[in-house]
Amino acid sequence: MRLAQALFAPRAVALIGASGDARKNTARPQRFLRKHGYTGRVVPVNATRDEVLGERAYRRLADAPVEIDHAFIMVEDVEPALEDCAAKGVTVATVYSNGFADAGTDGAERQGRLVERAKALGVRLLGPNSMGVVNLPGRFALTVNAVLEADALPAGSTSLVSQSGTMLGTLLSRGAARGLGYAKLVSVGNEADLGVAELVELLVDDADTKVIALFLETVRDAERLARAARKAHAAGKPIVVYKLGRSALGVELARTHTGALAGMDVALDAYFRDCGIVRVDMLETLVEIPPLLAGREPPGLTRPARVAVVTTTGGGAASVVDRLGLHGIALASMDDLTMTATKDSYRATLEQLLRSPDCDAVLAAVGSSAQFHPELAVEPIIQAQRTAKPLAAFLTPHAERSLALLAERGIPAFRTPEACADAFAAFFAWRAPREQFGVRTAISLGSVPELIRARSPSPFAVMEALGIPVVEQAIAEAPHFAHSVPYPVAVKRMDVEHKTEAGGVALNIQDGAELAACAKRMGQQRVLVQRMEHGLAEAIVGYRDDPVVGPLVLVGTGGTLAELYKDFAVALAPVTDAEAEELAGKVKGLAVIRGYRNMASGDVAALSRAVSAFSRVALIPGQPVREAEVNPLIVKAQGVVAVDARLVLKK
Amino acid sequence: MRLAQALFAPRAVALIGASGDARKNTARPQRFLRKHGYTGRVVPVNATRDEVLGERAYRRLADAPVEIDHAFIMVEDVEPALEDCAAKGVTVATVYSNGFADAGTDGAERQGRLVERAKALGVRLLGPNSMGVVNLPGRFALTVNAVLEADALPAGSTSLVSQSGTMLGTLLSRGAARGLGYAKLVSVGNEADLGVAELVELLVDDADTKVIALFLETVRDAERLARAARKAHAAGKPIVVYKLGRSALGVELARTHTGALAGMDVALDAYFRDCGIVRVDMLETLVEIPPLLAGREPPGLTRPARVAVVTTTGGGAASVVDRLGLHGIALASMDDLTMTATKDSYRATLEQLLRSPDCDAVLAAVGSSAQFHPELAVEPIIQAQRTAKPLAAFLTPHAERSLALLAERGIPAFRTPEACADAFAAFFAWRAPREQFGVRTAISLGSVPELIRARSPSPFAVMEALGIPVVEQAIAEAPHFAHSVPYPVAVKRMDVEHKTEAGGVALNIQDGAELAACAKRMGQQRVLVQRMEHGLAEAIVGYRDDPVVGPLVLVGTGGTLAELYKDFAVALAPVTDAEAEELAGKVKGLAVIRGYRNMASGDVAALSRAVSAFSRVALIPGQPVREAEVNPLIVKAQGVVAVDARLVLKK
Repeated sequence: MRLAQALFAPRAVALIGASGDARKNTARPQRFLRKHGYTGRVVPVNATRDEVLGERAYRRLADAPVEIDHAFIMVEDVEPALEDCAAKGVTVATVYSNGFADAGTDGAERQGRLVERAKALGVRLLGPNSMGVVNLPGRFALTVNAVLEADALPAGSTSLVSQSGTMLGTLLSRGAARGLGYAKLVSVGNEADLGVAELVELLVDDADTKVIALFLETVRDAERLARAARKAHAAGKPIVVYKLGRSALGVELARTHTGALAGMDVALDAYFRDCGIVRVDMLETLVEIPPLLAGREPPGLTRPARVAVVTTTGGGAASVVDRLGLHGIALASMDDLTMTATKDSYRATLEQLLRSPDCDAVLAAVGSSAQFHPELAVEPIIQAQRTAKPLAAFLTPHAERSLALLAERGIPAFRTPEACADAFAAFFAWRAPREQFGVRTAISLGSVPELIRARSPSPFAVMEALGIPVVEQAIAEAPHFAHSVPYPVAVKRMDVEHKTEAGGVALNIQDGAELAACAKRMGQQRVLVQRMEHGLAEAIVGYRDDPVVGPLVLVGTGGTLAELYKDFAVALAPVTDAEAEELAGKVKGLAVIRGYRNMASGDVAALSRAVSAFSRVALIPGQPVREAEVNPLIVKAQGVVAVDARLVLKK
Repeated sequence: MRLAQALFAPRAVALIGASGDARKNTARPQRFLRKHGYTGRVVPVNATRDEVLGERAYRRLADAPVEIDHAFIMVEDVEPALEDCAAKGVTVATVYSNGFADAGTDGAERQGRLVERAKALGVRLLGPNSMGVVNLPGRFALTVNAVLEADALPAGSTSLVSQSGTMLGTLLSRGAARGLGYAKLVSVGNEADLGVAELVELLVDDADTKVIALFLETVRDAERLARAARKAHAAGKPIVVYKLGRSALGVELARTHTGALAGMDVALDAYFRDCGIVRVDMLETLVEIPPLLAGREPPGLTRPARVAVVTTTGGGAASVVDRLGLHGIALASMDDLTMTATKDSYRATLEQLLRSPDCDAVLAAVGSSAQFHPELAVEPIIQAQRTAKPLAAFLTPHAERSLALLAERGIPAFRTPEACADAFAAFFAWRAPREQFGVRTAISLGSVPELIRARSPSPFAVMEALGIPVVEQAIAEAPHFAHSVPYPVAVKRMDVEHKTEAGGVALNIQDGAELAACAKRMGQQRVLVQRMEHGLAEAIVGYRDDPVVGPLVLVGTGGTLAELYKDFAVALAPVTDAEAEELAGKVKGLAVIRGYRNMASGDVAALSRAVSAFSRVALIPGQPVREAEVNPLIVKAQGVVAVDARLVLKK
């Protein structure tokens, strides 16, 4: 609580490097604190002045006549300023100054030294490279962000944690324009000490915060954020994230911009889903979705969601519905009211749908009248007797007053059809945090840890020990190439990695003579002989210890085409059998074993068991495996069988 | 010219059914004409009043003491009103009244009779179900759309044709909020007479119009719109379209809402591209893109586009760049200027990039200062010496004044990172209208038309006559099943449609005995025997006479997986060899014949020739073919061969 108070509601704040020139960025914190009505003590510290912007200033922090909870450091020489803070008993120092991890290897080393010293001194750090902290209900605006020039910014119950300082202003500004306020806003900068996860923890305990919004370029502490997300869920506070790095270009940019790995986007998608964090695709959805989430639980639908639409504008409603369709959401019904519909009939229609079991959400699409007759246009929506079911609005014209009226009543309202559909899609995809399977449950790994400890373990032996059926196989050697595997067999070279491309695989070998000829052709003295297996489909099962989100399991369709189509699904590992089945259900190409077009059905249960068993690689103590793969895992009408496997240990 | 003048700048306009109650929708046209400064004569016609809203009104149109160019019909009894218009010599009647094709079969019949009568009377119709016409430079606002309550609406050089009346107000209102004005805006309603295509023709001839924007739910006259688009291109007037119906749900909705087929979305995509029409994905892009298009030609790049970014906000710029990456656009460079960068250095950086050969467009991403210091924030962008290369801006905060300053200077400026990236993607995908291959060129179809006239033509014979290599094959009959095709062969039943699923195909039959046994197993007296063909890939080539856009050719990857992944590309038919090659190049799965991962390359040229030959089905006089397909077309290292074909004639 001491940290939260110092961070968001300090009794006194020092501005180290406060400028006396009101036009300078470093003069902003003082101006903004005053402008937005901060009632605590402001202590400008300036090495050359006794007065700054009309207030008493001090040459050194030590000279300040009061105790300082929070210091805002804007000087280039951050290190001595930190020592001063410690000497003064400052609880938290927000460092605006940059030139740390944001500035290459040397900067990263400087940051390492800074944070080590701060720990030793007992001062918590926000930043470096932080734009500051804003607490609107608490009238505390400690930031250099120019958006705080606004005369009045509405307070609200959404709090923001942002890895981009600009975005603090962007969200504040865009929210304010439509009557959506914030509680706390924090620019975390380089997260040298205080990180996103810890801030989420603080916000879970913050009485003013109902929804936590995150703007992320990367995830620096996935484990702690996952725990914080569980805590938020337990407290009934939804978390919503917008994360950069969806394209390869974005990933690369985030890496150069933040100095951190951005992570594989599908892995982050799986991570957020499994943490119970709602992920939005569009920037404005992050601004607009909080009222849709506030006070709600993950809907947990096991079928496509159905949205009912009430509208006076066919074209406007269609622009949302078309987009909903792209997200796989169905239209429950569409009430195309004419312009002459009375407010009472409009409201009655809304109320009937809100009570109906036939839809999961109701959308009111409002036409041109929203701009000049806002009270009339949104009155039926505001007055409708609400239920737990979401009621949202999309306004076709530029209609800020209507947006604000809806915001005041806590009704989610959207400026664009795309953000509206994005919000519904994100809402319906929202899940409760996944129970951490294998963490609570004691699962026996049998001989697996021992096999791994042996180094250079046989991938097949590990798969077998995990409980994955492995093809019957043997090593056959010159001159006779004798073995016990029944013919026909497949023959594989053992000295190359990409066997198929190197011509190292021969299929359907019928007898010993053919086998010997084949080995000779391959120029091999020893070959791997496997029973020929025929299935209905080939799957890939993969494991990866992702540097950002940790152990992942992947299921995909095998073969070159599937590789071209990037047809796979990913989840945090380990997974249960049921979770594995759900995962495999997301792989399009595996439709061929799910009874597609009357094709014979494959053993989905055996596939799921194998995926689940495979994913337990994540439970090996010390997580020594970097990557593992079964490719292909042949799916048969009865059972599955692994015919090739790969395992890469960490160095 | 007489039509354009009557429509957009009539000397006198009659309001048939004008209400004396200022709050009613039917009072709006009169109020809006006055409010926006119409200088012509306004003639309210009201069956029960001699005065309406303080102006002299007439019981019957015939009583009006002046000639009327344009009548706006708001009464339920449209038919007698039309007769009155004709008697009075009205050039064009805009019908606001609905209950026609928008209201089921009876309404459609009523509309048919109305338009027939209008033609006979020589009166042109806009609508029914039209919200009207606005000419902002001409100060003529003949509409019921509530957005015209606005006191001042900026005139601009973009004109809009919309199938949704609401969207007329939506675009006007959203444009005005950021300083983007319009020239003409037309709500076409049901397009009983005046349609989108004819309006585009009028706008191509309109001196005030530089860019033509379309909001479409369907395309009702694809041929005429294609001609109009070519005319627009020749006149240097870009056309941009937002079209509903991208999802199956949207298609269904458009059908019920407009009573017209919405068309297959990929077909419309191909159609717009081939017409040289820019298609945007998001609604606000339609508002924001015109300055990016105005005065520009299709860029015609044959490599990925490269955008250079100059920014003072890393996070804000990244939100656009991430999205650009999803559209396949590369980042040429990123100049992350600090907040202390001078305006001069900012401008110099922009100018250097605008002159550099290393990028195709320049984007300035502006941070929080855009909201409260607009002049400062956008000054370097406005002052930069421009070249032909596009320069655009994205503003992170809510910053209408900055948007307006940029709009004034004709600089494209975007509110959201998504619309910004959408606009760049649409701009770089923009092509000049495709030359109508086969329409100008005389291509001999040989015996094809004759074969088709025979009804029940053999699909294989047609393919062969088109010049597509067909597998060597013969019919073999019981009891001996003798034939001349060399073994091994494939055997196919001739009495079922979906052979593979019906167990009607046997492969690799080695000799006559096996063939006889196979036919017996299939229970057949006659079977089709084909030489066994092996290739590197299987392609599908399809033809369809689309009810909306006309003849289409499709190329895709063969097989069940490709079907699941919907991996195909579509173009208007016919196509040249070069166009066919470009089309096949868009099919992901065909990467396997393009040298993917050192795989053997297939005969791409032979595939392209076959696709081109196949697409000439579109040139058969009278276009008697509804659908045709070669599936699979086996692509070999040398050559291609069709092993199955299908042909469906129109009834």
